Amino acid sequence: MFAVTILGSNSALPMHDRHPTCQVITAGDELLLIDCGEGAQSQMNRFKIRRSRINHIYISHLHGDHYFGLPGLLNSFSLTNRKDPIHLYAPAELKPILDLQFDAAQAHLSYSLIFHELKEEKEITDLKKFSIKAFRVSHRIECWGFLIQEKEKPKKIDTDRALDFDVPSSFFPQLKEGKDYMHVSGRLVKNEWVTKAANPSRSYAFCADTRFDPEIANKIRSCNLLYHEATYLDDLREKAEDRFHSTAKQAAKMALLAEAKHLLIGHFSSKYDELAPFLTEASALFPQTELAIEGASYLIRD
Amino acid sequence: MFAVTILGSNSALPMHDRHPTCQVITAGDELLLIDCGEGAQSQMNRFKIRRSRINHIYISHLHGDHYFGLPGLLNSFSLTNRKDPIHLYAPAELKPILDLQFDAAQAHLSYSLIFHELKEEKEITDLKKFSIKAFRVSHRIECWGFLIQEKEKPKKIDTDRALDFDVPSSFFPQLKEGKDYMHVSGRLVKNEWVTKAANPSRSYAFCADTRFDPEIANKIRSCNLLYHEATYLDDLREKAEDRFHSTAKQAAKMALLAEAKHLLIGHFSSKYDELAPFLTEASALFPQTELAIEGASYLIRD
Repeated sequence: MFAVTILGSNSALPMHDRHPTCQVITAGDELLLIDCGEGAQSQMNRFKIRRSRINHIYISHLHGDHYFGLPGLLNSFSLTNRKDPIHLYAPAELKPILDLQFDAAQAHLSYSLIFHELKEEKEITDLKKFSIKAFRVSHRIECWGFLIQEKEKPKKIDTDRALDFDVPSSFFPQLKEGKDYMHVSGRLVKNEWVTKAANPSRSYAFCADTRFDPEIANKIRSCNLLYHEATYLDDLREKAEDRFHSTAKQAAKMALLAEAKHLLIGHFSSKYDELAPFLTEASALFPQTELAIEGASYLIRD
Repeated sequence: MFAVTILGSNSALPMHDRHPTCQVITAGDELLLIDCGEGAQSQMNRFKIRRSRINHIYISHLHGDHYFGLPGLLNSFSLTNRKDPIHLYAPAELKPILDLQFDAAQAHLSYSLIFHELKEEKEITDLKKFSIKAFRVSHRIECWGFLIQEKEKPKKIDTDRALDFDVPSSFFPQLKEGKDYMHVSGRLVKNEWVTKAANPSRSYAFCADTRFDPEIANKIRSCNLLYHEATYLDDLREKAEDRFHSTAKQAAKMALLAEAKHLLIGHFSSKYDELAPFLTEASALFPQTELAIEGASYLIRD
């Protein structure tokens, strides 16, 4: 399973029963948390997120609407006596803030909190079936996007054909790696005769908060699902640029530029109660668009 | 109007749709905020609290469930372009935490944030009709209680009698201050003949988080409404003492000792879904007890 569940879809001011940014990525057996706005814990309760399965937390930047729910979550992990370490990836300045908060509370966490400073565009997490890269986006302060990629999958064996060619099942693991089989008689069975290509690897790109920046397209090229912020509608494009945010139309433009397969837009300004105009505006340019709705899960599809 | 509205009644872990500690005191025209757990802003939206009327914020201590909603609230004040200053009363260690957070966000507040360090037991705020005192309670880390007292009220004029005695209405302000009236003829009108005693001044005491500590009774003597924490039921008295918390029975005992008129209990542990046993336990000892229910307002009565 590879999917994203939206816990918060709003920008800074909590309004219209929408919450600040927070997403949970289901990446196989792991849950990855991206950003952790205030109220993230309550949203996890509400949408039945199994928080014990979260081992990695990614914070894009240090505007409060992207991390003010984190100290409470880290405390709660300790109150429920968590033992597994948490890997936290964030701009360097988060560490002294958390340290001061723990000191002031005289808190001793029940688990290790391993802080990874974001400082270069590179792979930052290597899981069994997924890798996570950090890349820079273009916001008023240092801000990071994240690209979550499925690793290359092994080939699929066409069992009937492999048996037809008398390939013993003990050799199947090597078939998956692409090797040919040689019978003791010297007869060769070419790998492609008995295997099928694996399903292509999928990827999810998270881009918030950022103004429209064509350079980002190269960093997320051909992703299956692009989450891009769309704080405003395009009539407020100047305001968006001024505040280092994007419009729904610009999000769609980025999806086109990056040749993304699908687009998910969120981080809506509190000034908008109705979200339908965001979908109308973005899908006019990029039809495979969906609105980020809190509580909804979006599969990352081919 | 003198009342308290509960925005959060739970202890540290948000559960059972209860939230961490946060209260709004209506003190005449002013709203005073006591503690500001995570989600305080959403609770203010939900219960229609006019946050522009909040000028004073009191933070009892630096366990996260009492202040993790504060940075977001202070940010939101700025996003909505507030101009009036905010007076913030808290333990000293809160200031560098907020400063680091504002620095990391490169935030510039639209209003002055005036920080008052809590360090002695004394009057900390002097409003037109109310005064607020801070006093120490007994918790694992430095923790403060707050006593909000109506100032002494002017006497009430018995208008019919004042006219019978030919006291001119221009003298009524002095009558309220307790002065006698002397006619030009030399005839004296004693103040008590034409006035009635004012309604007695009322007071509200906030005590959380604290273990049962008899010394607190002297600091809140005869208050009209005592809010006292009741994290556990009395069968877990040892656990409560160990964690510097109180039981419902101990809260009732404090109300008796302090000769409070009414008792309000809150800060319930997340382990309890049902709250009725708290009311049963406390009111057995102190009948004038109520449960702190989120969204409910409690008048401070004689």
